[in-house]
Amino acid sequence: MEELKLNQTIRCIVKLGGAAITCKNELEKINEENLETVSFQLRQAMISDSCSRKVIGMDWSKRAGVSDISSSLSDFGDLGQLNVDLSRFIVVHGAGSFGHFQASKSGVHRGGLEQPLVKAGFVATRISVTTLNLEIVRALARVGIPSIGMPPYACGWSTSERNVASADLSGVAKAIDSGFIPVLHGDAVLDDVLGCTILSGDVIIRHLAEHLKPEYVVFLTDVLGVYDRPPTDENAVLLREIAVDEDERWSVVKPTLQSMNTQVKTTAAAHDTTGGMETKISEAAMIAKLGIDVYIVKAATGHSLRALSGELIRDIPEDWRGTVIRLSRE
Amino acid sequence: MEELKLNQTIRCIVKLGGAAITCKNELEKINEENLETVSFQLRQAMISDSCSRKVIGMDWSKRAGVSDISSSLSDFGDLGQLNVDLSRFIVVHGAGSFGHFQASKSGVHRGGLEQPLVKAGFVATRISVTTLNLEIVRALARVGIPSIGMPPYACGWSTSERNVASADLSGVAKAIDSGFIPVLHGDAVLDDVLGCTILSGDVIIRHLAEHLKPEYVVFLTDVLGVYDRPPTDENAVLLREIAVDEDERWSVVKPTLQSMNTQVKTTAAAHDTTGGMETKISEAAMIAKLGIDVYIVKAATGHSLRALSGELIRDIPEDWRGTVIRLSRE
Repeated sequence: MEELKLNQTIRCIVKLGGAAITCKNELEKINEENLETVSFQLRQAMISDSCSRKVIGMDWSKRAGVSDISSSLSDFGDLGQLNVDLSRFIVVHGAGSFGHFQASKSGVHRGGLEQPLVKAGFVATRISVTTLNLEIVRALARVGIPSIGMPPYACGWSTSERNVASADLSGVAKAIDSGFIPVLHGDAVLDDVLGCTILSGDVIIRHLAEHLKPEYVVFLTDVLGVYDRPPTDENAVLLREIAVDEDERWSVVKPTLQSMNTQVKTTAAAHDTTGGMETKISEAAMIAKLGIDVYIVKAATGHSLRALSGELIRDIPEDWRGTVIRLSRE
Repeated sequence: MEELKLNQTIRCIVKLGGAAITCKNELEKINEENLETVSFQLRQAMISDSCSRKVIGMDWSKRAGVSDISSSLSDFGDLGQLNVDLSRFIVVHGAGSFGHFQASKSGVHRGGLEQPLVKAGFVATRISVTTLNLEIVRALARVGIPSIGMPPYACGWSTSERNVASADLSGVAKAIDSGFIPVLHGDAVLDDVLGCTILSGDVIIRHLAEHLKPEYVVFLTDVLGVYDRPPTDENAVLLREIAVDEDERWSVVKPTLQSMNTQVKTTAAAHDTTGGMETKISEAAMIAKLGIDVYIVKAATGHSLRALSGELIRDIPEDWRGTVIRLSRE
């Protein structure tokens, strides 16, 4: 894999979980309210100092019901003094209710591009996930984040038996060094062995983290964090801190309930072709093993804003709710 | 630039001109009727033999006003026998009424990414052109063309003083070898010297033609072809055939009017940041110089279907209307 030239370190890689930004049980529907809040929180977290700054909206497209777009550009007089330098984030999003239906209907993740249904499903999946990508890029741009859509298929990501075989990390680095916020996503990609497969957002995050070494990684999801059993179970206990050793073995540090079963039970929705919480924990453990803190937290809450802002790097405040996965300090 | 491995030759690179597929004077509006006709013509031209084939729609997204998408998938019983091999095309589209406003308002083509307005305009331009790209990919997929959006910025295209400096042609080749139809477009890209600029669809076509050597190139536009003066001028004469020599000098072969001024007069709309017909002729001449026939023809007409189908390769029928630009045969 190519040498990487980055002018400065990446501050944070953030995963916008499919369940957090889409209505997971309604086909191809964005959770607009959550997405807007997440966008504002990202913007706030990216502003390095505390003084509030003027925002330039960067989505200059025609909006439904509005005949002209120049109105959104009315106040461009004094941009000269405006500092639009934001700290260096990478955004990766899941598919949620976009793409999963098309992928599972056609079996894209199993490969076999020579089959007409798989080929059609590959195209249909990419249309669905790039539609979501564009909407997320737009939502971020609207609040002044210079977001750039980088669909993995187009950016040269491919796999070999579902493991990342190539990825244009230099393109991501170049975008960041140019002051942009790259926005990647789970995508249908070519696979050297299978023909094609689905590359999940979580696998992308791990690969980016390994090569770009961010200060921390945040997974925004639709529940408070990782539980010892499905969060719908009334006895589910939120795991506050998980320690990972260098062999990727992990154990729950907090809470320290004697009775707790450290073998965490999870479920994955049947239509989730890339695995649910189980994948997330194991991917997160691989990132934590590198010495990079991982925070799994509910999107669009005060807890997510604190995680995104890097407040948790030294100590985890008692009143913070979420799961920290980090390298064992013993 | 990287070595290229292509299993077979490319049959055709086709440019969907911005003026042909969008309503050029109405902001961000697609000419749906033309785009649909163009998509059907492309599908017809891509089917190698003459028997009609069953079409699988490949856009499985939710459509406005329809609550479910499974209805579009109702007839998937006998896909096993379906042959979806189409001949090898690359589609490149212009921006038309998408992107130009955002680009010219901010001066993206002149560079200067450190300026807040340019950076915002870069993001806004990319949002607008990728919106169009997605709609075109969708339109092609709907008629059964396995289209894959490959936005040049994301695919690693960049420039140096507006000349192509890098381009992931192997990604395009790999997509084609996997049976897909890549869909590229004019885009905002990084420039080594200027910081950023606009890479036009015409420049992309020339670069692809030079490296991938298609059998022929078709420019679909909103007028019959190239005229000796602006086509709105009532005395404008359609140039039927232009010959290019190896020094890129070109002359009109047909019609052979003595009085005709071979210095073709053209205009470009003021908001067209990448040049109009003038750019097109000079780019076309550079392609023709390589021995590749270039046809400039009105989109969504019988003439465009004949050009796309490769009917003009040997002889130009008398009743065909359009402009052929080819290497001088003297």
